Amino acid sequence: MNSLTHKLLYFDIPGRGEAIRILLHAAGIGFTDTRFPSADWKTIKPTTPLGSVPVLTINGTDHVQSLALMRYAAKLGGFYPTDDHPLQALVVDEVMETCSELMSKAPRSRDKEELKRLRQEFQENTMTRYSSFMEGIVAKNKEAMGSSLVVGTTVTVADLSVHGLVRTIANGGWDYVDTEFFNKDYPELMAVSKAVDENDKVLAYYASKK
Amino acid sequence: MNSLTHKLLYFDIPGRGEAIRILLHAAGIGFTDTRFPSADWKTIKPTTPLGSVPVLTINGTDHVQSLALMRYAAKLGGFYPTDDHPLQALVVDEVMETCSELMSKAPRSRDKEELKRLRQEFQENTMTRYSSFMEGIVAKNKEAMGSSLVVGTTVTVADLSVHGLVRTIANGGWDYVDTEFFNKDYPELMAVSKAVDENDKVLAYYASKK
Repeated sequence: MNSLTHKLLYFDIPGRGEAIRILLHAAGIGFTDTRFPSADWKTIKPTTPLGSVPVLTINGTDHVQSLALMRYAAKLGGFYPTDDHPLQALVVDEVMETCSELMSKAPRSRDKEELKRLRQEFQENTMTRYSSFMEGIVAKNKEAMGSSLVVGTTVTVADLSVHGLVRTIANGGWDYVDTEFFNKDYPELMAVSKAVDENDKVLAYYASKK
Repeated sequence: MNSLTHKLLYFDIPGRGEAIRILLHAAGIGFTDTRFPSADWKTIKPTTPLGSVPVLTINGTDHVQSLALMRYAAKLGGFYPTDDHPLQALVVDEVMETCSELMSKAPRSRDKEELKRLRQEFQENTMTRYSSFMEGIVAKNKEAMGSSLVVGTTVTVADLSVHGLVRTIANGGWDYVDTEFFNKDYPELMAVSKAVDENDKVLAYYASKK
Protein backbone atom coordinates (compact mmCIF):
# COMPACT_ATOMS: atom_id res chain seq x y z
CA MET A 1 0.00 0.00 0.00
CA ASN A 2 2.91 2.32 0.63
CA SER A 3 3.50 2.84 -3.05
CA LEU A 4 0.19 4.70 -3.34
CA THR A 5 0.09 8.48 -3.00
CA HIS A 6 -2.49 9.97 -0.63
CA LYS A 7 -3.79 13.53 -0.51
CA LEU A 8 -6.46 14.67 1.93
CA LEU A 9 -8.58 17.76 1.22
CA TYR A 10 -10.55 19.26 4.13
CA PHE A 11 -11.24 22.41 6.11
CA ASP A 12 -8.57 23.49 8.61
CA ILE A 13 -10.59 22.13 11.53
CA PRO A 14 -10.90 18.68 13.19
CA GLY A 15 -14.53 17.99 12.07
CA ARG A 16 -14.83 15.00 9.78
CA GLY A 17 -11.15 15.12 8.80
CA GLU A 18 -9.21 14.67 12.03
CA ALA A 19 -9.78 10.93 12.49
CA ILE A 20 -8.61 10.31 8.91
CA ARG A 21 -5.46 12.36 9.52
CA ILE A 22 -4.70 10.50 12.77
CA LEU A 23 -5.35 7.08 11.23
CA LEU A 24 -3.28 7.66 8.09
CA HIS A 25 -0.43 8.85 10.31
CA ALA A 26 -0.87 5.80 12.56
CA ALA A 27 -0.69 3.59 9.46
CA GLY A 28 2.63 5.17 8.54
CA ILE A 29 1.20 6.54 5.32
CA GLY A 30 2.68 9.82 4.24
CA PHE A 31 -0.04 12.09 2.88
CA THR A 32 -0.46 15.65 1.69
CA ASP A 33 -2.68 17.32 4.28
CA THR A 34 -4.36 20.05 2.23
CA ARG A 35 -6.35 22.35 4.51
CA PHE A 36 -8.32 25.34 3.31
CA PRO A 37 -9.99 28.28 5.08
CA SER A 38 -13.80 28.24 5.07
CA ALA A 39 -13.78 31.36 2.87
CA ASP A 40 -12.43 29.17 0.02
CA TRP A 41 -15.20 26.57 0.28
CA LYS A 42 -17.38 28.23 -2.33
CA THR A 43 -14.70 27.81 -5.02
CA ILE A 44 -13.54 24.36 -3.87
CA LYS A 45 -17.00 22.79 -3.50
CA PRO A 46 -17.78 22.46 -7.26
CA THR A 47 -14.40 20.79 -7.86
CA THR A 48 -15.24 17.87 -5.52
CA PRO A 49 -17.07 14.71 -6.71
CA LEU A 50 -20.22 15.24 -4.61
CA GLY A 51 -19.85 18.82 -3.40
CA SER A 52 -18.48 17.59 -0.10
CA VAL A 53 -15.24 17.13 1.82
CA PRO A 54 -13.23 15.29 3.03
CA VAL A 55 -11.87 14.03 -0.29
CA LEU A 56 -9.01 11.53 -0.18
CA THR A 57 -7.18 11.36 -3.49
CA ILE A 58 -5.36 8.05 -3.86
CA ASN A 59 -3.04 7.75 -6.85
CA GLY A 60 -4.99 10.50 -8.59
CA THR A 61 -8.46 9.07 -7.96
CA ASP A 62 -10.80 11.05 -5.70
CA HIS A 63 -12.55 9.09 -2.94
CA VAL A 64 -15.34 10.51 -0.78
CA GLN A 65 -17.69 9.73 2.14
CA SER A 66 -16.06 10.37 5.48
CA LEU A 67 -16.97 7.04 7.13
CA ALA A 68 -15.63 5.10 4.14
CA LEU A 69 -12.39 7.08 4.33
CA MET A 70 -12.11 6.59 8.09
CA ARG A 71 -12.66 2.84 7.76
CA TYR A 72 -10.04 2.58 5.01
CA ALA A 73 -7.42 4.45 7.03
CA ALA A 74 -8.40 2.53 10.18
CA LYS A 75 -7.81 -0.83 8.51
CA LEU A 76 -4.36 0.22 7.32
CA GLY A 77 -3.45 1.45 10.80
CA GLY A 78 -4.81 -1.50 12.80
CA PHE A 79 -7.78 0.44 14.20
CA TYR A 80 -10.45 -1.84 12.76
CA PRO A 81 -11.39 -5.46 13.60
CA THR A 82 -10.00 -7.98 11.11
CA ASP A 83 -12.11 -10.32 8.98
CA ASP A 84 -12.13 -13.01 11.68
CA HIS A 85 -14.15 -10.69 13.97
CA PRO A 86 -17.24 -9.73 11.94
CA LEU A 87 -19.41 -9.13 15.00
CA GLN A 88 -16.87 -6.70 16.46
CA ALA A 89 -16.66 -4.95 13.09
CA LEU A 90 -20.46 -4.66 13.10
CA VAL A 91 -20.40 -2.91 16.47
CA VAL A 92 -17.62 -0.57 15.31
CA ASP A 93 -19.66 0.29 12.22
CA GLU A 94 -22.88 0.89 14.12
CA VAL A 95 -21.18 3.26 16.55
CA MET A 96 -19.43 5.14 13.71
CA GLU A 97 -22.74 5.54 11.90
CA THR A 98 -24.61 6.48 15.06
CA CYS A 99 -22.12 9.26 15.87
CA SER A 100 -22.24 10.50 12.29
CA GLU A 101 -26.04 10.44 12.22
CA LEU A 102 -26.22 12.35 15.49
CA MET A 103 -23.90 15.01 14.06
CA SER A 104 -26.08 15.30 10.94
CA LYS A 105 -29.29 15.52 12.97
CA ALA A 106 -28.22 18.48 15.13
CA PRO A 107 -30.85 21.10 14.31
CA ARG A 108 -29.87 24.33 12.58
CA SER A 109 -31.69 27.66 12.42
CA ARG A 110 -30.82 31.30 11.72
CA ASP A 111 -33.31 32.34 14.41
CA LYS A 112 -31.58 32.29 17.81
CA GLU A 113 -34.71 31.61 19.87
CA GLU A 114 -35.79 28.82 17.57
CA LEU A 115 -32.29 27.33 17.55
CA LYS A 116 -32.28 27.34 21.36
CA ARG A 117 -35.62 25.56 21.53
CA LEU A 118 -34.70 23.00 18.84
CA ARG A 119 -31.28 22.25 20.34
CA GLN A 120 -32.66 21.77 23.85
CA GLU A 121 -35.32 19.44 22.54
CA PHE A 122 -32.62 17.62 20.53
CA GLN A 123 -30.48 17.23 23.65
CA GLU A 124 -33.37 15.82 25.67
CA ASN A 125 -34.54 13.41 22.99
CA THR A 126 -32.27 12.32 20.14
CA MET A 127 -28.94 13.03 21.87
CA THR A 128 -30.03 11.25 25.04
CA ARG A 129 -31.35 8.24 23.15
CA TYR A 130 -28.30 7.88 20.89
CA SER A 131 -25.82 8.47 23.71
CA SER A 132 -27.54 5.99 26.04
CA PHE A 133 -27.42 3.38 23.30
CA MET A 134 -23.67 3.87 22.86
CA GLU A 135 -23.07 4.05 26.62
CA GLY A 136 -24.71 0.62 26.85
CA ILE A 137 -22.44 -0.80 24.16
CA VAL A 138 -19.32 0.37 25.99
CA ALA A 139 -20.66 -0.85 29.36
CA LYS A 140 -21.26 -4.27 27.84
CA ASN A 141 -17.75 -4.41 26.42
CA LYS A 142 -16.31 -3.32 29.76
CA GLU A 143 -18.16 -6.15 31.47
CA ALA A 144 -16.99 -8.72 28.89
CA MET A 145 -13.47 -7.48 28.15
CA GLY A 146 -12.56 -5.21 31.05
CA SER A 147 -11.99 -2.20 28.78
CA SER A 148 -14.03 0.99 28.47
CA LEU A 149 -13.91 0.86 24.69
CA VAL A 150 -16.52 0.27 22.00
CA VAL A 151 -15.21 -3.24 21.34
CA GLY A 152 -12.31 -5.39 22.46
CA THR A 153 -9.27 -4.19 24.32
CA THR A 154 -7.61 -1.81 21.87
CA VAL A 155 -8.74 1.54 20.48
CA THR A 156 -10.66 1.34 17.19
CA VAL A 157 -11.98 3.93 14.77
CA ALA A 158 -15.33 3.75 16.61
CA ASP A 159 -13.62 5.10 19.72
CA LEU A 160 -12.27 7.94 17.59
CA SER A 161 -15.85 8.67 16.46
CA VAL A 162 -17.05 8.82 20.08
CA HIS A 163 -14.07 10.98 21.00
CA GLY A 164 -14.84 13.45 18.21
CA LEU A 165 -18.45 13.73 19.34
CA VAL A 166 -17.61 14.12 23.05
CA ARG A 167 -14.98 16.76 22.29
CA THR A 168 -17.29 18.70 19.98
CA ILE A 169 -19.91 19.01 22.73
CA ALA A 170 -17.44 19.67 25.55
CA ASN A 171 -15.83 22.44 23.49
CA GLY A 172 -19.18 24.18 23.02
CA GLY A 173 -19.40 23.25 19.35
CA TRP A 174 -23.19 23.13 19.48
CA ASP A 175 -24.77 26.31 20.86
CA TYR A 176 -27.46 25.69 23.51
CA VAL A 177 -26.37 22.10 24.11
CA ASP A 178 -24.93 21.60 27.60
CA THR A 179 -21.12 21.34 27.39
CA GLU A 180 -21.34 19.02 30.43
CA PHE A 181 -23.82 16.70 28.68
CA PHE A 182 -21.48 13.71 28.48
CA ASN A 183 -19.52 14.54 31.62
CA LYS A 184 -22.69 14.47 33.74
CA ASP A 185 -24.33 11.26 32.61
CA TYR A 186 -22.10 9.17 30.35
CA PRO A 187 -19.06 7.90 32.28
CA GLU A 188 -18.32 5.13 29.78
CA LEU A 189 -18.30 7.47 26.79
CA MET A 190 -16.06 9.84 28.76
CA ALA A 191 -13.73 6.90 29.46
CA VAL A 192 -13.63 6.10 25.73
CA SER A 193 -12.70 9.70 24.98
CA LYS A 194 -9.94 9.56 27.61
CA ALA A 195 -8.58 6.30 26.15
CA VAL A 196 -8.30 7.97 22.76
CA ASP A 197 -6.56 11.01 24.26
CA GLU A 198 -4.02 8.69 25.90
CA ASN A 199 -3.53 6.33 22.94
CA ASP A 200 0.12 6.10 21.87
CA LYS A 201 -0.57 6.52 18.16
CA VAL A 202 -2.92 9.45 18.72
CA LEU A 203 -0.31 11.10 20.94
CA ALA A 204 2.35 10.43 18.28
CA TYR A 205 0.20 12.15 15.66
CA TYR A 206 -0.17 15.32 17.73
CA ALA A 207 3.52 15.24 18.69
CA SER A 208 4.34 15.17 14.97
CA LYS A 209 2.34 18.38 14.49
CA LYS A 210 4.38 20.41 16.98
CA MET B 1 -20.92 -17.83 13.39
CA ASN B 2 -23.64 -20.36 12.73
CA SER B 3 -24.24 -20.86 16.43
CA LEU B 4 -25.56 -17.30 16.72
CA THR B 5 -29.28 -16.60 16.38
CA HIS B 6 -30.36 -13.84 14.00
CA LYS B 7 -33.67 -12.01 13.89
CA LEU B 8 -34.39 -9.17 11.45
CA LEU B 9 -37.10 -6.60 12.15
CA TYR B 10 -38.27 -4.43 9.24
CA PHE B 11 -41.28 -3.27 7.27
CA ASP B 12 -42.76 -5.71 4.77
CA ILE B 13 -41.09 -3.94 1.85
CA PRO B 14 -37.64 -4.16 0.20
CA GLY B 15 -36.41 -0.68 1.32
CA ARG B 16 -33.39 -0.87 3.61
CA GLY B 17 -34.08 -4.47 4.58
CA GLU B 18 -33.92 -6.45 1.36
CA ALA B 19 -30.14 -6.47 0.90
CA ILE B 20 -29.72 -7.72 4.48
CA ARG B 21 -32.24 -10.52 3.86
CA ILE B 22 -30.53 -11.57 0.61
CA LEU B 23 -27.05 -11.46 2.15
CA LEU B 24 -27.95 -13.41 5.30
CA HIS B 25 -29.57 -16.03 3.08
CA ALA B 26 -26.48 -16.07 0.83
CA ALA B 27 -24.33 -16.60 3.93
CA GLY B 28 -26.40 -19.64 4.84
CA ILE B 29 -27.53 -18.01 8.07
CA GLY B 30 -31.01 -18.97 9.15
CA PHE B 31 -32.83 -15.92 10.51
CA THR B 32 -36.28 -14.96 11.69
CA ASP B 33 -37.58 -12.50 9.10
CA THR B 34 -40.01 -10.40 11.13
CA ARG B 35 -41.97 -8.08 8.85
CA PHE B 36 -44.63 -5.68 10.06
CA PRO B 37 -47.27 -3.58 8.29
CA SER B 38 -46.64 0.18 8.33
CA ALA B 39 -49.71 0.64 10.53
CA ASP B 40 -47.75 -1.03 13.36
CA TRP B 41 -44.76 1.29 13.11
CA LYS B 42 -46.07 3.71 15.71
CA THR B 43 -46.07 1.01 18.40
CA ILE B 44 -42.84 -0.69 17.26
CA LYS B 45 -40.75 2.49 16.90
CA PRO B 46 -40.32 3.20 20.64
CA THR B 47 -39.18 -0.40 21.25
CA THR B 48 -36.16 -0.01 18.91
CA PRO B 49 -32.77 1.31 20.09
CA LEU B 50 -32.80 4.50 18.00
CA GLY B 51 -36.39 4.69 16.79
CA SER B 52 -35.37 3.14 13.49
CA VAL B 53 -35.42 -0.12 11.56
CA PRO B 54 -33.92 -2.38 10.35
CA VAL B 55 -32.90 -3.93 13.68
CA LEU B 56 -30.88 -7.14 13.57
CA THR B 57 -31.00 -8.99 16.88
CA ILE B 58 -28.01 -11.30 17.24
CA ASN B 59 -28.06 -13.64 20.24
CA GLY B 60 -30.48 -11.29 21.99
CA THR B 61 -28.53 -8.08 21.34
CA ASP B 62 -30.12 -5.45 19.10
CA HIS B 63 -27.93 -4.04 16.33
CA VAL B 64 -28.88 -1.06 14.17
CA GLN B 65 -27.75 1.14 11.27
CA SER B 66 -28.61 -0.37 7.92
CA LEU B 67 -25.20 0.02 6.26
CA ALA B 68 -23.49 -1.61 9.25
CA LEU B 69 -25.94 -4.51 9.06
CA MET B 70 -25.51 -4.84 5.29
CA ARG B 71 -21.71 -4.89 5.63
CA TYR B 72 -21.87 -7.53 8.38
CA ALA B 73 -24.12 -9.82 6.36
CA ALA B 74 -22.07 -9.16 3.22
CA LYS B 75 -18.85 -10.27 4.89
CA LEU B 76 -20.43 -13.50 6.08
CA GLY B 77 -21.79 -14.21 2.60
CA GLY B 78 -18.67 -13.33 0.60
CA PHE B 79 -20.12 -10.10 -0.80
CA TYR B 80 -17.45 -7.81 0.65
CA PRO B 81 -13.73 -7.46 -0.21
CA THR B 82 -11.45 -9.20 2.28
CA ASP B 83 -8.81 -7.48 4.43
CA ASP B 84 -6.15 -7.88 1.75
CA HIS B 85 -8.11 -5.53 -0.56
CA PRO B 86 -8.59 -2.32 1.47
CA LEU B 87 -8.83 -0.10 -1.59
CA GLN B 88 -11.63 -2.24 -3.07
CA ALA B 89 -13.41 -2.16 0.30
CA LEU B 90 -13.10 1.64 0.30
CA VAL B 91 -14.83 1.85 -3.08
CA VAL B 92 -17.56 -0.53 -1.92
CA ASP B 93 -18.10 1.62 1.18
CA GLU B 94 -18.20 4.89 -0.73
CA VAL B 95 -20.79 3.58 -3.16
CA MET B 96 -22.93 2.14 -0.33
CA GLU B 97 -22.82 5.48 1.49
CA THR B 98 -23.45 7.47 -1.68
CA CYS B 99 -26.58 5.45 -2.48
CA SER B 100 -27.80 5.76 1.10
CA GLU B 101 -27.14 9.50 1.17
CA LEU B 102 -28.99 9.97 -2.11
CA MET B 103 -31.99 8.09 -0.67
CA SER B 104 -31.94 10.30 2.45
CA LYS B 105 -31.65 13.50 0.43
CA ALA B 106 -34.73 12.89 -1.74
CA PRO B 107 -36.93 15.92 -0.94
CA ARG B 108 -40.27 15.42 0.79
CA SER B 109 -43.28 17.72 0.97
CA ARG B 110 -47.02 17.42 1.63
CA ASP B 111 -47.63 20.04 -1.03
CA LYS B 112 -47.85 18.34 -4.43
CA GLU B 113 -46.71 21.33 -6.48
CA GLU B 114 -43.79 21.96 -4.17
CA LEU B 115 -42.85 18.27 -4.18
CA LYS B 116 -42.85 18.26 -7.98
CA ARG B 117 -40.59 21.30 -8.12
CA LEU B 118 -38.20 19.98 -5.45
CA ARG B 119 -38.00 16.50 -6.94
CA GLN B 120 -37.32 17.79 -10.47
CA GLU B 121 -34.58 20.05 -9.13
CA PHE B 122 -33.21 17.10 -7.15
CA GLN B 123 -33.15 14.93 -10.26
CA GLU B 124 -31.30 17.58 -12.28
CA ASN B 125 -28.75 18.37 -9.61
CA THR B 126 -28.02 15.94 -6.76
CA MET B 127 -29.24 12.76 -8.49
CA THR B 128 -27.32 13.56 -11.65
CA ARG B 129 -24.14 14.40 -9.76
CA TYR B 130 -24.25 11.33 -7.50
CA SER B 131 -25.22 8.97 -10.31
CA SER B 132 -22.51 10.28 -12.65
CA PHE B 133 -19.95 9.76 -9.90
CA MET B 134 -21.01 6.13 -9.47
CA GLU B 135 -21.28 5.57 -13.23
CA GLY B 136 -17.63 6.65 -13.46
CA ILE B 137 -16.59 4.19 -10.76
CA VAL B 138 -18.24 1.29 -12.60
CA ALA B 139 -16.83 2.43 -15.97
CA LYS B 140 -13.34 2.49 -14.43
CA ASN B 141 -13.75 -1.01 -13.01
CA LYS B 142 -15.05 -2.25 -16.36
CA GLU B 143 -11.96 -0.87 -18.07
CA ALA B 144 -9.63 -2.43 -15.49
CA MET B 145 -11.39 -5.70 -14.74
CA GLY B 146 -13.78 -6.25 -17.64
CA SER B 147 -16.83 -6.34 -15.38
CA SER B 148 -19.66 -3.83 -15.08
CA LEU B 149 -19.56 -3.97 -11.29
CA VAL B 150 -18.56 -1.48 -8.61
CA VAL B 151 -15.30 -3.33 -7.93
CA GLY B 152 -13.62 -6.53 -9.05
CA THR B 153 -15.28 -9.35 -10.93
CA THR B 154 -17.91 -10.61 -8.47
CA VAL B 155 -21.04 -8.97 -7.09
CA THR B 156 -20.54 -7.10 -3.80
CA VAL B 157 -22.89 -5.40 -1.37
CA ALA B 158 -22.19 -2.12 -3.22
CA ASP B 159 -23.78 -3.59 -6.33
CA LEU B 160 -26.81 -4.48 -4.20
CA SER B 161 -26.96 -0.84 -3.07
CA VAL B 162 -26.93 0.37 -6.68
CA HIS B 163 -29.52 -2.25 -7.61
CA GLY B 164 -31.84 -1.09 -4.82
CA LEU B 165 -31.57 2.52 -5.95
CA VAL B 166 -32.06 1.75 -9.66
CA ARG B 167 -35.08 -0.43 -8.90
CA THR B 168 -36.65 2.14 -6.60
CA ILE B 169 -36.53 4.78 -9.34
CA ALA B 170 -37.58 2.42 -12.17
CA ASN B 171 -40.57 1.28 -10.10
CA GLY B 172 -41.76 4.85 -9.64
CA GLY B 173 -40.80 4.93 -5.97
CA TRP B 174 -40.11 8.66 -6.12
CA ASP B 175 -42.99 10.70 -7.48
CA TYR B 176 -41.97 13.24 -10.14
CA VAL B 177 -38.59 11.62 -10.73
CA ASP B 178 -38.32 10.13 -14.23
CA THR B 179 -38.65 6.33 -14.00
CA GLU B 180 -36.32 6.20 -17.04
CA PHE B 181 -33.66 8.28 -15.28
CA PHE B 182 -31.07 5.48 -15.08
CA ASN B 183 -32.19 3.69 -18.23
CA LYS B 184 -31.63 6.81 -20.34
CA ASP B 185 -28.19 7.93 -19.22
CA TYR B 186 -26.47 5.41 -16.97
CA PRO B 187 -25.69 2.21 -18.89
CA GLU B 188 -23.08 1.04 -16.38
CA LEU B 189 -25.39 1.38 -13.39
CA MET B 190 -28.08 -0.46 -15.37
CA ALA B 191 -25.53 -3.22 -16.07
CA VAL B 192 -24.77 -3.44 -12.34
CA SER B 193 -28.46 -3.79 -11.60
CA LYS B 194 -28.76 -6.53 -14.22
CA ALA B 195 -25.76 -8.39 -12.77
CA VAL B 196 -27.46 -8.41 -9.37
CA ASP B 197 -30.72 -9.65 -10.87
CA GLU B 198 -28.82 -12.52 -12.51
CA ASN B 199 -26.59 -13.37 -9.55
CA ASP B 200 -26.92 -17.01 -8.46
CA LYS B 201 -27.25 -16.26 -4.76
CA VAL B 202 -29.77 -13.48 -5.34
CA LEU B 203 -31.80 -15.81 -7.56
CA ALA B 204 -31.55 -18.53 -4.89
CA TYR B 205 -32.92 -16.13 -2.27
CA TYR B 206 -35.98 -15.28 -4.36
CA ALA B 207 -36.48 -18.92 -5.32
CA SER B 208 -36.56 -19.75 -1.58
CA LYS B 209 -39.40 -17.27 -1.08
CA LYS B 210 -41.71 -18.97 -3.58
